[in-house]
Amino acid sequence: MKLPLGFRYASAYAGIRKKSKDDVGLIVSERIASAAAVFTRNRVQAAPVRLARRHLKISRGLAQAIVVNAGNANCATRTGDRVALETCRATAAELGCKVEHVIPASTGVIGVELEADRIIRALPRLKKNLAADAFEDVAHAIMTTDTVHKVASAEVSIRGRQVRVAGMTKGAGMIMPNMATTLAFVMTDAELSPGDLKAVLSAGVDHSYNRISVDGDTSTNDTLAILANGASGARPGDSDMKKIQGAVEDVLQSLAVQIVRDGEGARRLITIDVEGAPDDEAAERIARSIANSPLFKTAIAGCDPNWGRIISAAGNAGVDFDPGRVDIFLQDTQVCDGGLAAEFSEAKLKHRLDSSEVGVRFVIRGRAPGEARFWTCDFTEEYIRINGSYRT
Amino acid sequence: MKLPLGFRYASAYAGIRKKSKDDVGLIVSERIASAAAVFTRNRVQAAPVRLARRHLKISRGLAQAIVVNAGNANCATRTGDRVALETCRATAAELGCKVEHVIPASTGVIGVELEADRIIRALPRLKKNLAADAFEDVAHAIMTTDTVHKVASAEVSIRGRQVRVAGMTKGAGMIMPNMATTLAFVMTDAELSPGDLKAVLSAGVDHSYNRISVDGDTSTNDTLAILANGASGARPGDSDMKKIQGAVEDVLQSLAVQIVRDGEGARRLITIDVEGAPDDEAAERIARSIANSPLFKTAIAGCDPNWGRIISAAGNAGVDFDPGRVDIFLQDTQVCDGGLAAEFSEAKLKHRLDSSEVGVRFVIRGRAPGEARFWTCDFTEEYIRINGSYRT
Repeated sequence: MKLPLGFRYASAYAGIRKKSKDDVGLIVSERIASAAAVFTRNRVQAAPVRLARRHLKISRGLAQAIVVNAGNANCATRTGDRVALETCRATAAELGCKVEHVIPASTGVIGVELEADRIIRALPRLKKNLAADAFEDVAHAIMTTDTVHKVASAEVSIRGRQVRVAGMTKGAGMIMPNMATTLAFVMTDAELSPGDLKAVLSAGVDHSYNRISVDGDTSTNDTLAILANGASGARPGDSDMKKIQGAVEDVLQSLAVQIVRDGEGARRLITIDVEGAPDDEAAERIARSIANSPLFKTAIAGCDPNWGRIISAAGNAGVDFDPGRVDIFLQDTQVCDGGLAAEFSEAKLKHRLDSSEVGVRFVIRGRAPGEARFWTCDFTEEYIRINGSYRT
Repeated sequence: MKLPLGFRYASAYAGIRKKSKDDVGLIVSERIASAAAVFTRNRVQAAPVRLARRHLKISRGLAQAIVVNAGNANCATRTGDRVALETCRATAAELGCKVEHVIPASTGVIGVELEADRIIRALPRLKKNLAADAFEDVAHAIMTTDTVHKVASAEVSIRGRQVRVAGMTKGAGMIMPNMATTLAFVMTDAELSPGDLKAVLSAGVDHSYNRISVDGDTSTNDTLAILANGASGARPGDSDMKKIQGAVEDVLQSLAVQIVRDGEGARRLITIDVEGAPDDEAAERIARSIANSPLFKTAIAGCDPNWGRIISAAGNAGVDFDPGRVDIFLQDTQVCDGGLAAEFSEAKLKHRLDSSEVGVRFVIRGRAPGEARFWTCDFTEEYIRINGSYRT
């Protein structure tokens, strides 16, 4: 994997999770970087989410380090705010940077006090081990219920210089307030102003993390942060922004799809395309409604070409459409023709649905321009097993 | 069960479902009755839903019969409208009433043509077998994935006369466009104008069928109809309406809770009470958000007192509240105290959660008046099994 210049990484085991597996990570930019982040919209927000937001505000979109732990979400605890702040202060002291240039993030169990000392005691080790090639170590350290670590990268040429984007993420359910959450950290060596970086992130998230669903909910700790340190020496002009935008979006989309693919108990990645809706937002609502329908997701788990569940889930999206003008395709086989059953071989289609990737196309006839792509996974007995016996 | 006067019932096997089990039902009032109904809000609506709505409009809220079939939803088919109309016409001819006084309803597989002839050929048998005590036969005939038939009744005294309300329902998932749906038929011998009946139904539904969730969705065929034929001779005055309202609401609530209790694969009925929200609507949104969270529902299936999932699901309701003022009780044991973990014995509470009935109380401190009660069920591996292998 080709990594952006000017970043170093380290991970360590701080004793936060029971299993002896690295549970803290540090990402450091050699120079102060532009920084932007999006956070959970849940009304309940963990202490590190609140502090990260505050630091980005005070620093006006600059940062030099990300300090992250797994195994404890530092949420709904008496000492949460103090623990997050002490962790950032100690990190800043260790690195010799300002406290507001440290972005904290946590994932894990909620309602259990996190001991700041465990992280603080690990900081000297982390600093000592910082290395440009330890990127995947941090990707491993942030895993909770994930079965695989998740990374992605992209490279573009800007004015003769190579610009790199690399990201890591974790998450296997969209909401896992007990032991998981979605975290993503993306680094690039492009030189971007904080304002430009924010715009790039916002557009990228809209077509990646905002278009996936495992179980239709958000966590208390969801954090997606991006750093741009300019170490490539490439300063994109207005005409280059599309390239940078494309590279960041590619990385975010790859990471987001990896989360869905690793969805708890999931056996199939489902890509839902909606076309012909009044506008893109309506298309997204229809796609989301299908993606969140437990009945649709269980049908796919059972290789059942049950298009009735798809059109019915779409009918619950709150979007006005004529069911008599709907065509539905499963794995490119038409199953619904103008709201009615199409002729197809159920046996053959069942066989084709027994795949790790399933495509659904929902088309409203006419020339309306609204379209959206959305990703979800099937809903298996294993999901229930994982979530029903988590703390037991 | 004490049944309202002046109604007769019959069921028969018309060969619509494969299994030889009654699949058509007829409910007839001896005299023309006031009638009201609520239907699915899904954008995709089955032919019988559209026709029932039309008949009630033409008749201005009068009806004499309900004709219902299971095994085929008569939805998303080429011949749907014609089949529904022919069925009503034949029923009206058989009974000697007007076609607009017949309310049709269907439940079952969608996208498969329904043969009107099968129902029409069964009509003479149905008419011949009409009996005042065959109420539960119809309740059995409308079952699809239900494991038990569902009936409820109530009796009140109005001006010295006994007024009875009796209802039947079916449904085991809120959305089952393939083979199930929610149907409910309620009969009373009170004398009520169509307008009063509509008001009584509307208020009753708001505190029963609109407060339950199995998988958070609606079907294409959901129909809840009520007939009031006045056969008791009791004509409630304004001061008696509360009593009638109460009796109808009791019946609807009992029926609705029976659906949740029979939720697909469900082992536990969960009652969620929200208190201290800004208003009742906000309380309902919080309760619904908790009830629809797969993670909460799987935790309850696993007897896991995981209040983090409850407060996080509430945080997704789009209602503004301070998490630091939230108290949560599970089976009357406080698990969250002002947004933080309360002290409780996890082992003892796990044991108490292993019950067929689980109570959740979510209280926002302060004096805000909004409250709501909502019912749902736990989410088990069996749900996935039922829905993933339905047509296979």
